[in-house]
Amino acid sequence: MPSTDPVFLRGFVASLYVAAGLPDDHAAFVAETLVRADMWGHSSHGVMRAPWYLDRVKTGVMRPVTTAERVVDAGAIAVVDGHDGVGQVIARDAMQDAIRRAKAHGVGVVSIRNSGHHGALGYFTRMAAEAGCVGILTANGGPAMAPWGGKRMKVGTNPWSIAAPAGAHAPMMLDMANTVVARGKIFLARQKGLPIPDHWAIDADGRRTTDPVEALKGVILPMAEHKGYAIATMVDVLSGVLSGSGILGEVSSPYQKDKVSRSGHLIIALNIAAFQPLDAFNARMEHMIAELKSVPRAEGVEEIFYPGELEARNEVRHARDGLALPEQTRIDLNKAADELGVARPEGW
Amino acid sequence: MPSTDPVFLRGFVASLYVAAGLPDDHAAFVAETLVRADMWGHSSHGVMRAPWYLDRVKTGVMRPVTTAERVVDAGAIAVVDGHDGVGQVIARDAMQDAIRRAKAHGVGVVSIRNSGHHGALGYFTRMAAEAGCVGILTANGGPAMAPWGGKRMKVGTNPWSIAAPAGAHAPMMLDMANTVVARGKIFLARQKGLPIPDHWAIDADGRRTTDPVEALKGVILPMAEHKGYAIATMVDVLSGVLSGSGILGEVSSPYQKDKVSRSGHLIIALNIAAFQPLDAFNARMEHMIAELKSVPRAEGVEEIFYPGELEARNEVRHARDGLALPEQTRIDLNKAADELGVARPEGW
Repeated sequence: MPSTDPVFLRGFVASLYVAAGLPDDHAAFVAETLVRADMWGHSSHGVMRAPWYLDRVKTGVMRPVTTAERVVDAGAIAVVDGHDGVGQVIARDAMQDAIRRAKAHGVGVVSIRNSGHHGALGYFTRMAAEAGCVGILTANGGPAMAPWGGKRMKVGTNPWSIAAPAGAHAPMMLDMANTVVARGKIFLARQKGLPIPDHWAIDADGRRTTDPVEALKGVILPMAEHKGYAIATMVDVLSGVLSGSGILGEVSSPYQKDKVSRSGHLIIALNIAAFQPLDAFNARMEHMIAELKSVPRAEGVEEIFYPGELEARNEVRHARDGLALPEQTRIDLNKAADELGVARPEGW
Repeated sequence: MPSTDPVFLRGFVASLYVAAGLPDDHAAFVAETLVRADMWGHSSHGVMRAPWYLDRVKTGVMRPVTTAERVVDAGAIAVVDGHDGVGQVIARDAMQDAIRRAKAHGVGVVSIRNSGHHGALGYFTRMAAEAGCVGILTANGGPAMAPWGGKRMKVGTNPWSIAAPAGAHAPMMLDMANTVVARGKIFLARQKGLPIPDHWAIDADGRRTTDPVEALKGVILPMAEHKGYAIATMVDVLSGVLSGSGILGEVSSPYQKDKVSRSGHLIIALNIAAFQPLDAFNARMEHMIAELKSVPRAEGVEEIFYPGELEARNEVRHARDGLALPEQTRIDLNKAADELGVARPEGW
């Protein structure tokens, strides 16, 4: 696999979005979020998704020009209707809005309906951390798991993320789906032609499977058994019910190219300085991280990481060494470029 | 096991707390929360804990007269110092405060330091649900799990709870610890003299064990592997770092009778009516629950439950049929009564 310069990749992906009709700055931002996920090592949420999103613009279920509307604007809180625009742009603007409200009121909450898939959630909660806030973001997605005891998909993986500044360290960040694995990891296995572990999913007949293609026709299992089901359901309440967006089967996944997303989100920003001096918070975070890393390690473990540390380390490494994109992702991006009439850039 | 009337049990437990020096209304409230946990079927957080809490009053690490102080009072947010009072009383007052702030600002946040263990978190988030809010509560506890890759306890089970009204149904409620099981469940197994499954914990030497006594000397495993570690750590940030309370090993567990708790909490209440009409929210919750329960069931499963439904059903059943307390719990309560000079009530 040839190494790909992230800056170069960002420019190429942005050009595809511009060709699809997105304003230049929106196109650049979406490309930035996708490439950042690849740099973090979360390729399942990286540029491999660009062709899916572009298909959704083509079929008209995602509007290239985002015209989100604030339907409630009341001090610490707001409700936004994304009007089926670009999820990343809607989430960015809403997070900035939540941070502004938090700076004025101590806490800012933005509830979002009719948004779309927006890649790795940690991108947006880290925005809050970099602004001196604790950031929380939840999102609902298309059906991916069965209610506990059921055998048909009904509840989304429904990811959620929390991030906080960590002093001299990169922000502490949690970003997870509530299935045993993110659905994107099964897509990635299919993309790479690799089998999956047998505790990730059941097939359409309810049998465990190691074939990613069969798994995608069946049901992914929740993490931690019934607990993952409970979390995913509650994330749907926060993201879908509270915002007035779609819930359960009313929400579509990004790989469904002809269905409006109806995904909803909840964003909460807490302005740390309103609770205690930010410097004291940062000092305590550094102390916490030092304590975690000082714990005696199990055999074969070289280092204990705090949540989000691996992503930050991967980002530095990939900025220096470039990204190793799977061949299938290159093929898919080229196909998208051809369809959109975008010339493949020199050196690609 | 004789059946115990919950109302009777509440009165008996309250009398122990009064004898320990709590004001009558605080004593009654603590007894109510403990008995409610037993009624929900969460005996690990029920009256079996009363003797532990009472021991903590005796040693002076928990003050019987709670004098919580609001150190920040700023519109939508507040910071409270619990001054080592009774956790249940501090959490109740803070949740009521958060609900009041939510009614005024759409969202209310109360961050609490120097509180104490307060039993089942769902008791407090359900208060928010009953007031037309979504309630969120996080708490940190004494070390119970190792950081992922470590072999010594450092991070608490750090439970969290979210509840929301659900129309004609009992509130939807999530209430979980981030270990494979709540530490209380291992105490309960010890209390009942039963072995535990071998994937719950490792002993002090790092070996899997089925002996609850050895497990309590060792380390409980996080749920969902590294994900449970990440959630527990982030709950510590929300509960301990943000509030200025203890974190990691600075926090003590309720069964440590001679150490100040230093547990912190974060409470968030969202006033649903500020986001959309409460009736519409409730109708959507009823629709969601009907959809979850309509999913085809796996073999051997009689019914699909929504989160919190089993607890609500248990509560009705135990109110009608009484509680079956383990003999050891009766012995422990009697011992506490004797020590406090409380006469055992007739019919006990």
